[in-house]
Amino acid sequence: MNNPQLNARGELQHLLSVEGLPRETLLHILATADSFVGLTDRDVKKVPLLRGKSVFNLFFENSTRTRTTFEIAAKRLSADVINLNINTSSTSKGESLLDTVDNLSAMHADMFIVRHASSGAPYQIARHVTPHPHLHVVNAGDGRHAHPTQGLLDLYTIRHYKKEFSQLSVAVIGDVLHSRVARSLIHGLTTLGVPDVRVIGPKTLLPAGVEQLGVKVFHDMNKGMAGVDVVAMLRLQNERMNGPLLPSAQEFFKSYGLTPEKLALAKPDAIVMHPGPMNRGVEIDSAVADGPSSVILPQVTFGIAVRMAVMSILAGN
Amino acid sequence: MNNPQLNARGELQHLLSVEGLPRETLLHILATADSFVGLTDRDVKKVPLLRGKSVFNLFFENSTRTRTTFEIAAKRLSADVINLNINTSSTSKGESLLDTVDNLSAMHADMFIVRHASSGAPYQIARHVTPHPHLHVVNAGDGRHAHPTQGLLDLYTIRHYKKEFSQLSVAVIGDVLHSRVARSLIHGLTTLGVPDVRVIGPKTLLPAGVEQLGVKVFHDMNKGMAGVDVVAMLRLQNERMNGPLLPSAQEFFKSYGLTPEKLALAKPDAIVMHPGPMNRGVEIDSAVADGPSSVILPQVTFGIAVRMAVMSILAGN
Amino acid sequence: MNNPQLNARGELQHLLSVEGLPRETLLHILATADSFVGLTDRDVKKVPLLRGKSVFNLFFENSTRTRTTFEIAAKRLSADVINLNINTSSTSKGESLLDTVDNLSAMHADMFIVRHASSGAPYQIARHVTPHPHLHVVNAGDGRHAHPTQGLLDLYTIRHYKKEFSQLSVAVIGDVLHSRVARSLIHGLTTLGVPDVRVIGPKTLLPAGVEQLGVKVFHDMNKGMAGVDVVAMLRLQNERMNGPLLPSAQEFFKSYGLTPEKLALAKPDAIVMHPGPMNRGVEIDSAVADGPSSVILPQVTFGIAVRMAVMSILAGN
Repeated sequence: MNNPQLNARGELQHLLSVEGLPRETLLHILATADSFVGLTDRDVKKVPLLRGKSVFNLFFENSTRTRTTFEIAAKRLSADVINLNINTSSTSKGESLLDTVDNLSAMHADMFIVRHASSGAPYQIARHVTPHPHLHVVNAGDGRHAHPTQGLLDLYTIRHYKKEFSQLSVAVIGDVLHSRVARSLIHGLTTLGVPDVRVIGPKTLLPAGVEQLGVKVFHDMNKGMAGVDVVAMLRLQNERMNGPLLPSAQEFFKSYGLTPEKLALAKPDAIVMHPGPMNRGVEIDSAVADGPSSVILPQVTFGIAVRMAVMSILAGN
Repeated sequence: MNNPQLNARGELQHLLSVEGLPRETLLHILATADSFVGLTDRDVKKVPLLRGKSVFNLFFENSTRTRTTFEIAAKRLSADVINLNINTSSTSKGESLLDTVDNLSAMHADMFIVRHASSGAPYQIARHVTPHPHLHVVNAGDGRHAHPTQGLLDLYTIRHYKKEFSQLSVAVIGDVLHSRVARSLIHGLTTLGVPDVRVIGPKTLLPAGVEQLGVKVFHDMNKGMAGVDVVAMLRLQNERMNGPLLPSAQEFFKSYGLTPEKLALAKPDAIVMHPGPMNRGVEIDSAVADGPSSVILPQVTFGIAVRMAVMSILAGN
Repeated sequence: MNNPQLNARGELQHLLSVEGLPRETLLHILATADSFVGLTDRDVKKVPLLRGKSVFNLFFENSTRTRTTFEIAAKRLSADVINLNINTSSTSKGESLLDTVDNLSAMHADMFIVRHASSGAPYQIARHVTPHPHLHVVNAGDGRHAHPTQGLLDLYTIRHYKKEFSQLSVAVIGDVLHSRVARSLIHGLTTLGVPDVRVIGPKTLLPAGVEQLGVKVFHDMNKGMAGVDVVAMLRLQNERMNGPLLPSAQEFFKSYGLTPEKLALAKPDAIVMHPGPMNRGVEIDSAVADGPSSVILPQVTFGIAVRMAVMSILAGN
């Protein structure tokens, strides 16, 4: 009822997390993305849906890659895009996050794309801009919490290749503990009715009580991979590789790296996803990453369409 | 006569300082801004006045906040905006300021928005581009000298809430010595006929001979606040707070911080302004900053309209 | 035959180097640039040739100056421009150059403007994007190898002032060894039939076997300057000035700095070029740089038109 992501009419007001989004909202976003997938192949890859709107990339944490996807999506919708890397900006002059947000709101911003190292920061911003109903917030990654457009593009990719969610087995593999991508994807899969979601990883890299998300837990990758339709690899953060949770990148690859041999345990037409950037030879073998089962680059293409869908839906509500 | 800001027909050629601008020029900018205030509420917040023009944000000193306001204003006028942070650029390869300016002029730039740590740098640039009559310079803050668009938006805000300048008492409070904002505002107020302009601050933070600007000086804030219509707070730079001119931020707040108690000495309908970013609890109490007398966020909104007005007037001359 | 810069129909597919470009291609670029030189003087300096196209400035090496020229050129062609400084980006997360390129290609990029410290990087990228025939690569400077748009704008400038190539004497002076500009220019001059190309510099700053490029070598500037029509000065990199190859900047200036006295040895109507940024007093005297023979700022103006020409030709093929 009191869902901060929906307005009084039940429409999407902010995109903060896949968790808490109704099934119909997820399906509406995926259906809207369909119309933008064709657009990007055209000669003039632009539509005027956000003409005259001001979209701010508020990146409190640096991420050229994610910022670029949102910048392209916004520009193809004809928005004016303004990039703010706020680590080097007025917060260093002692201005608080919310004073910064107030200022940009007063400039008649239409959308904030927020990346922040702290879980929950986009929620705090969304609550704060409540007096501005025309201002929308999109979470572009907050701490370990959520990365909803990545989750949505994963869902779009799965639907594109597998058509139906209701018969699928999906394995999410690797450092689930620190992954906002995993969280967003798992919520989406269960909401859309995937009957068999598995997480595979060492005990030290799975969150306590992960079963409560409605997933099956495997520590042995050979068992967990058996007969899956979709393999969703996660990125291993560099700082974990020789940390207390993990002996070494080589050890990890031996147990949980996706090789052609391990992939052979999945269904023959299984697809392999990865949110990027990949650590080749750590969580994934190049033979798989560049092989016929990989849909890693189509994920990127669909990601632009999904972000255009989210932005155009928000701007229309 | 030989005013570098005006062309041979007496029209605005560059905006370098509020000082030296005729009363009619100030009023013309404020009137032009009126037409842009409405625009920012519209669905498509764009007009084609600067279409095909190249506006360069030449920031020799980093200021995301100010750069953003100019970038938005220029984009809403449909200009092409190019951001240059010149500290990390060709000057590090040994190119001089004026060689950089010559190069950008040769690229057929239409407008330079200049921020520089040295007082007078925008004047030097304006003089240097004299052979290019279609090229206009806007000072976005130079050293301690001037920040004319901030001064103009302050004037716009005062006129918006108080209608007439000719009956007002305005208090400018805090670190006047290091404030380019204060200088620009005081010149504007006296030019527009405000009969009672006061500056309030400790002796160490007021410039010697400040009375010659046509202001009354107060060191006791309780006396200076009596019956004023407008309270213009200044930002205390972090580096001053425990410096030789000031015992501590706490001491400063006790004497010159704007609290509800001190504000009660002003007229009941007095407005409170601040150029931002605010040091809450240093120069201003949050109860005032977020209270009913505060017009700090409307200042930001008006600031976009004022910058659009300045740019469109310059481009038209 | 297997020229990576040309497509199967012999049209320009990528611009990687002036070396290897047919005479007709060079002349076609120069002729196309003619039409854009007029444009930049107009009130609305925009044409819709690249509307809806996504141009990525992929700068693995920082260069505000060069990035700016491409950004302006692309915006005046109505492209969407996205700036990526990749030193601080996903490569620091361990992603390889080619994975980055694959990702951006998957976002339906139309053009990569590539600057890289390693010679050959733009070739590697061009080879890698072969599966995307609509994606074009422009080399914006790779290591010591090539800087073809600079070479082309030099050729454009020479043609503008001298009309014909077939009777000219051109001297290229200074640090030829480390200059990608010199290489691109020399290849262009010989391809266009300039009968007399000279390189002038100390032995330590000329590449071994430079004569094989079809140039005459001079170590004595007074001899080399005799009767030339065009003087192309090169920038001396700061890091060379007191290095093992050169005693000091002062010594260099004495022997190879362009002074009015040395310039007097050239033809009376000789033009002086420099790619910028200049080291005044090292490779060129200010009296020459700002004197009547200097065409250094027109070079910058023509550079925008040449880059627009290259981009529009590529996008049309």
